[in-house]
Amino acid sequence: MFITLEGPEGSGKTTQARELAEFLRQQGYAILTTREPGGTSIGDQVRAILTDLQNATMHPRTEILLFLAARAQLVEEVIRPALARGYVVLCDRYADSTLAYQGYGHGVSLETLRALLAFATGGLIPDLTLLLDVDPEVGLQRRRRAGQWNRLDAYDLDFHRRVRQGYLELARQEPHRWFVVDASQPAEVVQSTLRQVVMERLRLHPASATPAERKDPLA
Amino acid sequence: MFITLEGPEGSGKTTQARELAEFLRQQGYAILTTREPGGTSIGDQVRAILTDLQNATMHPRTEILLFLAARAQLVEEVIRPALARGYVVLCDRYADSTLAYQGYGHGVSLETLRALLAFATGGLIPDLTLLLDVDPEVGLQRRRRAGQWNRLDAYDLDFHRRVRQGYLELARQEPHRWFVVDASQPAEVVQSTLRQVVMERLRLHPASATPAERKDPLA
Repeated sequence: MFITLEGPEGSGKTTQARELAEFLRQQGYAILTTREPGGTSIGDQVRAILTDLQNATMHPRTEILLFLAARAQLVEEVIRPALARGYVVLCDRYADSTLAYQGYGHGVSLETLRALLAFATGGLIPDLTLLLDVDPEVGLQRRRRAGQWNRLDAYDLDFHRRVRQGYLELARQEPHRWFVVDASQPAEVVQSTLRQVVMERLRLHPASATPAERKDPLA
Repeated sequence: MFITLEGPEGSGKTTQARELAEFLRQQGYAILTTREPGGTSIGDQVRAILTDLQNATMHPRTEILLFLAARAQLVEEVIRPALARGYVVLCDRYADSTLAYQGYGHGVSLETLRALLAFATGGLIPDLTLLLDVDPEVGLQRRRRAGQWNRLDAYDLDFHRRVRQGYLELARQEPHRWFVVDASQPAEVVQSTLRQVVMERLRLHPASATPAERKDPLA
């Protein structure tokens, strides 16, 4: 089972993903967590280019292609092999980030982006996507306070509002794949909701074995 | 006028491009030279990832997307602005490298690659493409001797043969855009042929002004 976490900056995605993974491990599932961009050595090198504040002249098309390059590597080097071995893969950002940020945010054609994404991912689509929804003003304030400000945050607030609306629109289009959580709630409440949703899907998912059976997928 | 140089590794492309640019400057043309991948600060960072021997696990799709990212940046930051100012742009490798290396070399669908290239370049096609054709065995020996061996050279000889045949096929498909030079000839002979072809095209090209008029395109 392939689960992705999506959401605007400062939605608490990364912390929630870590805690969710820890919980699922305690339940006996074999979990592989990763993040986008990055998650591989080559992807981390690409991520460094994307987040460097000195690269302010980066063209939107360059940005898209770099995100896709990191993703292509992650899919082939990490995600597909782990899924093949029976792991639950939990990915912090995936293809929907491209549609939200570059499509809805920068106005690039969604049709073009979907074609590029199909190439980069080799057609791999998540079974479940968790959207941590939060007002961009709240999210960006959180990140500034945490000292995590980078090049990608430096777009104006209107951009981040379009990204949020884009995410919500994507969730409306595929309600069976998406689950939207109000991430302005206390972190414990968000985490508790995520755990409940994921456990329910793991029980329903046709390919998911019982925790006991999945304990040692490499054996 | 937008001129590109293509050819297998070790065809002497880089040296020929430098000498050709110097000659055209002496003729009074405003010339901008650049190379692929790279040619911009962001592109050079991408080039470093592509040529690093430690990145041996790079997936072919990742490689394609990284080349395209460097190219997108080069087109928008350098090539289009220079063409708009009346420069003759001389580019060491461009979109046809992707078709030759990733398409003919790695067997990726040419149709998919053409769609990706249209996105990355925003549809910018060269007016003239000079192919420095050389037997891959000769070319790779030259590079080994020059100590310029890198990750992209490490594919086997069959791969480099497919690349060469791919280039020749592309040249056959668009004879008006391509000019094929036998790069196994002495360097002076190759250079002399290139100069002749380019001068002839500059005289015929509808957008090309006389050297005197083009001397100071930024004025």
